[in-house]
Amino acid sequence: MTSNLITSPSDAREMIRQNNWPKPTSGLSNGFIQANLAVLPKELAFEFLLFCQRNPKPCPIIDITDPGSGIPALAAPDADLRTDIPKYRVYRNGELAEEKTDVSDIWDDNMVGFLLGCSFTFEEALLNNGIPIRHIEENCNVPMYKTNIECVKAGRFEGPMVVSMRPMSEKDAIRAVQVTSRFPSVHGAPVHIGNPASIGIYDIQNPDFGDRVTIKEGEVPVFWACGVTPQAIAMHVKPEIMITHAPGFMFITDIKNEQYAVI
Amino acid sequence: MTSNLITSPSDAREMIRQNNWPKPTSGLSNGFIQANLAVLPKELAFEFLLFCQRNPKPCPIIDITDPGSGIPALAAPDADLRTDIPKYRVYRNGELAEEKTDVSDIWDDNMVGFLLGCSFTFEEALLNNGIPIRHIEENCNVPMYKTNIECVKAGRFEGPMVVSMRPMSEKDAIRAVQVTSRFPSVHGAPVHIGNPASIGIYDIQNPDFGDRVTIKEGEVPVFWACGVTPQAIAMHVKPEIMITHAPGFMFITDIKNEQYAVI
Repeated sequence: MTSNLITSPSDAREMIRQNNWPKPTSGLSNGFIQANLAVLPKELAFEFLLFCQRNPKPCPIIDITDPGSGIPALAAPDADLRTDIPKYRVYRNGELAEEKTDVSDIWDDNMVGFLLGCSFTFEEALLNNGIPIRHIEENCNVPMYKTNIECVKAGRFEGPMVVSMRPMSEKDAIRAVQVTSRFPSVHGAPVHIGNPASIGIYDIQNPDFGDRVTIKEGEVPVFWACGVTPQAIAMHVKPEIMITHAPGFMFITDIKNEQYAVI
Repeated sequence: MTSNLITSPSDAREMIRQNNWPKPTSGLSNGFIQANLAVLPKELAFEFLLFCQRNPKPCPIIDITDPGSGIPALAAPDADLRTDIPKYRVYRNGELAEEKTDVSDIWDDNMVGFLLGCSFTFEEALLNNGIPIRHIEENCNVPMYKTNIECVKAGRFEGPMVVSMRPMSEKDAIRAVQVTSRFPSVHGAPVHIGNPASIGIYDIQNPDFGDRVTIKEGEVPVFWACGVTPQAIAMHVKPEIMITHAPGFMFITDIKNEQYAVI
């Protein structure tokens, strides 16, 4: 008999809050939206929100806290963004200063927390449609690349889009467009299919972030806007302080993936 | 021979800028997205953007200007929001102060312009699907009602959702859900079908805004979130200054309706 017990998001966050889940959140509370975290001082929040609004593919907003609050009122009203992520990174003036499991002590009245969609949701939809995902098969990180696609500038926030790549058959690529178009809040449809050079990627075997994966004969690389983009761009602004999740250690919301499908 | 010439958005805006179109924009540049305008001082802009983000059905964002700029860079980069609407309303401390055809003289460095989706786009989609629209047939304004549906609060912005109502056959109501779901950037799917009382509307023949329309035997009222909501709510905050379009005198973007369909 197969167990189909799934830890509820609320139980998962409680475990994380007690520091009893010191590892990546992939697979935890399967079927629920997991999100990237970016926390910025209020004086940068309007420009950053404008940037996300203008670049919804790399920066799909799931929720935003009131200034000073750690409560994501829409995504998980009983959660606290200051404690409910297993590992945080704290950047000061654009440099990684420390990693922590709780950021309550540095989250002051000035902080605004942004939850941004991540690719777990659309990857689950791809798998449900029988489309294999290479980096999951090869048990490594998705390969990510800087592109020559400029994001739309907003105030101090500007720079190139970062994309993730999943190789697949041409037939699967068409289905992948259909499947991921249903989820605009978690990056949505691909930004490019086919020739990496036309978006400024000259060595597909050398990703800028993550790991290289095998591209088989007859497969085409499919590129999606990546949630690393807003963090990379915010880092360039060198805010006095910025808090993010550590890669792979995501925030688990109360929202089911399917609730974010547009139709 | 029927003329199918359509004035381009750029030509339409030029005509408007020269004050040669002193009337509502419905039917002008057919097929292109028209938008509601709300202009607020920068110190309210973050809270208002947060409010729109949290209430995407009544407040679907099409574009936002940089502070001080009148250029909607995404929606119509060669346009100017200070001159390209046929009639503006200027509110001071929540009271209508004047109507103008040009607001260049009062649009200072502190102003942020918000373009919000309007129902023209989904009405065109309904008509294209053979669903008649009663207020168009009866040549009057769409009936609008305050509801008991509370918007999600953001800072000083809070209050009830305003909805518009279109009566139709039950069969058409199902198709209307499908058709309008494709357009989340212009209010999207209905918020309610059927019993007005369950959303706090006790006299369907007495709309709070707009005109009453005939509801025929066997028809069901279908309610959509309405772009009047953010203006009504902003007015409550009584900002020192707020500029809007006059009802029916919309901003015409360069974006085709179909480009805003999610799939």
